Amino acid sequence: MHIARVMGTAVSTVKDERLEGAKLLLVSEANQTGEIVGNPYVALDRVGAGEGELVLIVTGSTARVAAGNENTPVDAVVVGILDSLRHDGELTYQKR
Amino acid sequence: MHIARVMGTAVSTVKDERLEGAKLLLVSEANQTGEIVGNPYVALDRVGAGEGELVLIVTGSTARVAAGNENTPVDAVVVGILDSLRHDGELTYQKR
Amino acid sequence: MHIARVMGTAVSTVKDERLEGAKLLLVSEANQTGEIVGNPYVALDRVGAGEGELVLIVTGSTARVAAGNENTPVDAVVVGILDSLRHDGELTYQKR
Amino acid sequence: MHIARVMGTAVSTVKDERLEGAKLLLVSEANQTGEIVGNPYVALDRVGAGEGELVLIVTGSTARVAAGNENTPVDAVVVGILDSLRHDGELTYQKR
Amino acid sequence: MHIARVMGTAVSTVKDERLEGAKLLLVSEANQTGEIVGNPYVALDRVGAGEGELVLIVTGSTARVAAGNENTPVDAVVVGILDSLRHDGELTYQKR
Repeated sequence: MHIARVMGTAVSTVKDERLEGAKLLLVSEANQTGEIVGNPYVALDRVGAGEGELVLIVTGSTARVAAGNENTPVDAVVVGILDSLRHDGELTYQKR
Repeated sequence: MHIARVMGTAVSTVKDERLEGAKLLLVSEANQTGEIVGNPYVALDRVGAGEGELVLIVTGSTARVAAGNENTPVDAVVVGILDSLRHDGELTYQKR
Repeated sequence: MHIARVMGTAVSTVKDERLEGAKLLLVSEANQTGEIVGNPYVALDRVGAGEGELVLIVTGSTARVAAGNENTPVDAVVVGILDSLRHDGELTYQKR
Repeated sequence: MHIARVMGTAVSTVKDERLEGAKLLLVSEANQTGEIVGNPYVALDRVGAGEGELVLIVTGSTARVAAGNENTPVDAVVVGILDSLRHDGELTYQKR
Repeated sequence: MHIARVMGTAVSTVKDERLEGAKLLLVSEANQTGEIVGNPYVALDRVGAGEGELVLIVTGSTARVAAGNENTPVDAVVVGILDSLRHDGELTYQKR
């Protein structure tokens, strides 16, 4: 799973009807300290993640499994909010 | 889902017959402000996207779900037109 | 779908028997003008593409759909020959 | 399969209920000598891997096969602990 | 399919039982001349490839098709040994 930071939101009115009501987050890949290391993309939220939080994201066909409906046209879904990350013996991230 | 900008169109006469009638857009990955950050690729349009617009694209096996027919040989499909993006507390993109 | 240029051919005698008779092309990712932008890889041809042409390639599980047999061990298939690409209001590629 | 080094652990309380009880490792892609060559990500452990060890990781839909339950929303799973790697005629990694 | 060079072998004793007996090769992505262009990874051998040879590798869900058993937790499989590559009108690789 990717580590990503929730940077904000995406709004799309004209979209596939199977995405109606979906909460679309703007996220960016992050490292063990929460520093941004990639370009932004959009993921469907399933866990109530808020801006600034670090989250776990699944991509590919697994995103449809995470969406709870294999017929949802989504390829990135937030499946968890990170509380903390330990890296090389140190606590490198802790949710405030 | 990828954020991408519609850069133009692709025309292919000799192609898999299951792609007959498909609207093929030339798109490039973009960031939260709509700036291009990747190489161009081709995606099937399902939402009537126009040149210059920012769109949401699904890839991989999810593209076939988005195409509405699992037998369509496509791995990138436009599933939404973006109205706006909010990033780090600011409105960074708004469709005109 | 990736835009790629057909650079040549690959020959493999010792291979999975389900690939017997497959036409294997050496291709490289290209941009809107046909300029090479990536490393070469090998794709199965399904449309009679010739050397130097720009083509559309599908990858991942979609390649097996494109191959017409889900049991073919292939993850990149040429599904179309490009006639032209329009990018940012200009004709950037035209097949000769 | 990716070669990765186990760098630590990830803790997530608010998550998809199908991930309850999952052991989440923080890992980074590594090369033949065990040197880190990529950004960290999170993988589900299935083999009892410990911090500092080099492991084999499967991603994509195969991760769900590795998890033993196709309904687990996971896209990276540790499937083996590496004992040694031989590269270009030399033993480049050996587990201590 | 990726072009890769067989660099050596990987040994893993503690692993998913469905990988028992699997021959695990250490490979690196290569270009049309066989020059290494990527980081090493591990692939299951199905064709008796030897060290130094250039091979064709399938990844993703196709790797499980190539493995001959959809329940094998593998995402990279060698499906062919390359005899030769022609690139831009020249023979750029020939197996010795």
